[in-house]
Amino acid sequence: MPGQKQGGLADVIAGQTGISTVGKEGKGLSYRGYSIYDLAQFASFEETAYLLLYGWLPTAEQLIQFQRQLAVSRALPPALTSILELLPGSTHPMDVLRTGYSALACFEPEEEDRLALDIAIRLIGSTSSILLYWYHYQQTGKRIDTYGGGGGVAAHFLSLLHQKEPDEQHAKALDVSLTLYAEHEFNASTFAARVTASTLSDYYSAVTTGVCTLRGPLHGGANEAAMELIERYASPDEAEAGVMEALQQKQLIMGFGHRVYSVSDPRSDVIKQWSLALSEQAGDRRLYDISERIEHVMRREKKLFPNLDFYSASAYHHMGIPTSLFTPVFVLSRLSGWSAHILEQRSRNRIIRPSADYIGPDPQEWLPLAQR
Amino acid sequence: MPGQKQGGLADVIAGQTGISTVGKEGKGLSYRGYSIYDLAQFASFEETAYLLLYGWLPTAEQLIQFQRQLAVSRALPPALTSILELLPGSTHPMDVLRTGYSALACFEPEEEDRLALDIAIRLIGSTSSILLYWYHYQQTGKRIDTYGGGGGVAAHFLSLLHQKEPDEQHAKALDVSLTLYAEHEFNASTFAARVTASTLSDYYSAVTTGVCTLRGPLHGGANEAAMELIERYASPDEAEAGVMEALQQKQLIMGFGHRVYSVSDPRSDVIKQWSLALSEQAGDRRLYDISERIEHVMRREKKLFPNLDFYSASAYHHMGIPTSLFTPVFVLSRLSGWSAHILEQRSRNRIIRPSADYIGPDPQEWLPLAQR
Repeated sequence: MPGQKQGGLADVIAGQTGISTVGKEGKGLSYRGYSIYDLAQFASFEETAYLLLYGWLPTAEQLIQFQRQLAVSRALPPALTSILELLPGSTHPMDVLRTGYSALACFEPEEEDRLALDIAIRLIGSTSSILLYWYHYQQTGKRIDTYGGGGGVAAHFLSLLHQKEPDEQHAKALDVSLTLYAEHEFNASTFAARVTASTLSDYYSAVTTGVCTLRGPLHGGANEAAMELIERYASPDEAEAGVMEALQQKQLIMGFGHRVYSVSDPRSDVIKQWSLALSEQAGDRRLYDISERIEHVMRREKKLFPNLDFYSASAYHHMGIPTSLFTPVFVLSRLSGWSAHILEQRSRNRIIRPSADYIGPDPQEWLPLAQR
Repeated sequence: MPGQKQGGLADVIAGQTGISTVGKEGKGLSYRGYSIYDLAQFASFEETAYLLLYGWLPTAEQLIQFQRQLAVSRALPPALTSILELLPGSTHPMDVLRTGYSALACFEPEEEDRLALDIAIRLIGSTSSILLYWYHYQQTGKRIDTYGGGGGVAAHFLSLLHQKEPDEQHAKALDVSLTLYAEHEFNASTFAARVTASTLSDYYSAVTTGVCTLRGPLHGGANEAAMELIERYASPDEAEAGVMEALQQKQLIMGFGHRVYSVSDPRSDVIKQWSLALSEQAGDRRLYDISERIEHVMRREKKLFPNLDFYSASAYHHMGIPTSLFTPVFVLSRLSGWSAHILEQRSRNRIIRPSADYIGPDPQEWLPLAQR
């Protein structure tokens, strides 16, 4: 069993899934059988989320109903906005989401007459509201209206963030990004959410586990780290020199390589095009050119390819999203994948409880306090 | 690999640990090499928690310092008590703890100058405060003083709960119970907390994942289910008839058997004695006698032994702990084991990211909305 020697359950089959394929022939990705390229090109994020949650592409009527449910979910209970106002402005935005979801469960618990699917929609619809209500209140003291006008999940996020109708190109790029980030098989946060679901805990707890796990810099935090990297340099030449030095010092460059892809990350090609388009729209190719140079250096020096996080950083930057909100945007998207996995885990449940290899002390004689 | 066929990672080695042995020869349990029997008989919960967190038994001086840190940790930030007051009285107490820990992270985040060990002590010291501040406020509107006098973690819990000096026998029994529940290798909540820690997420997030996962009825919720079972019957004969009927209907009887013990659960012997002692102290052996009869029936009919949860139910009941608080008491104890595992995971980290066996649809042609 190769995974045991390597650790981290690498290459260990932890269960079955019908939701996505990842890394077939080292590169592919599909959701419910549909290629990520088709979804990114033709489907809205709402169609993608519906596909993940229900298992099939919605009809026009189903899609309208789903969009309506998402829009209704934008309103927050007053006690929740009171809680958000109590969380300091210095709070890590992932801690805000974690606390927000956990608190929402207290007001609207999962009960027998409330379908988990409805709670999933409630959370997808209210995530931008929770995050950006807190954000504006702590930045300026303003209590924003979380409804925020028409449009889908991406447009809602941008309109709450910027407090105005979003740029159409930005909304489209964010919509595509949400589709790309929506689902990725047994990644750490999804797998952890399945472990939580496997004890038959409630839906909110399983999703909260997902947030807790995505928060780490080796997982969801990687897009923020990629932004910090590319922002550091004034030009491609400076970036090349900086990355070469970092590699010599054996520093980890975030946004490259992936445990399950060996050849390339199919999502990177898509977001790279969008990063370029938004750079040209802004008339400022600096971050894009720096990113491309770093990609070139990493291929040449380490034979590593950019993953989804790398070009997402510059794309989000051009949409005016503060770096500290990059990982919460990942949550907004991945909620759909987590939800599909929680439901799948429940449908054929067995508690996930592995064993450990004991490497600790041999049996010890008891030693009374006075003799220590 | 037997685990793959059975699912749930049963018997799959997911990593190494030096913290505890579980189920050696189908029955043993030790923490850092010390037998659970010695710890339950000779060590206070504080000594046990110290052993788990630091890796060795404390000297008298270290123990005093540790107890002092725990006592100081009983005070809550005012913004946290405001949040607890906003959580409805109908909230599941595990949702209160989950939200309380998540919110505390916003006020006292893990930062480079703040050791994870100190946060672990902070959480062990403040758990009874968070839970019982909310409990009394929602029951009677009273804002309790969370300091609650002298004594250890067990006495603090009981004195806050009953708002008076705890009965000595009760405090001793709860102290032993906390030792028994403190650590159990790669159980689902601990394993999930390690997955969260493996992305290098913060300490609070990893512990919150533990709470999310322990909440399920197949894990921490089992002691509550055991209480609901034994409360159902007026006499041992009625219990025998009821359990026989439930078995015929293939219902699951909670509190029996265990994935990692095949012969017996060593913790059950200890808590069973305490359940008997507290029953005799109360002059009411009904629940104990009912429990013993159910144990007898389960051995005879299913060859199953009681696990720690089963006799904990009647013991907690005699201490006057409401059934809805049983699983939070489990958290109060298991925090020490989770913390030890989070630190161990960090010390030799590799992201925990298994693979999945894909059983979903074959590649699908894209179908435009109008054609669905």
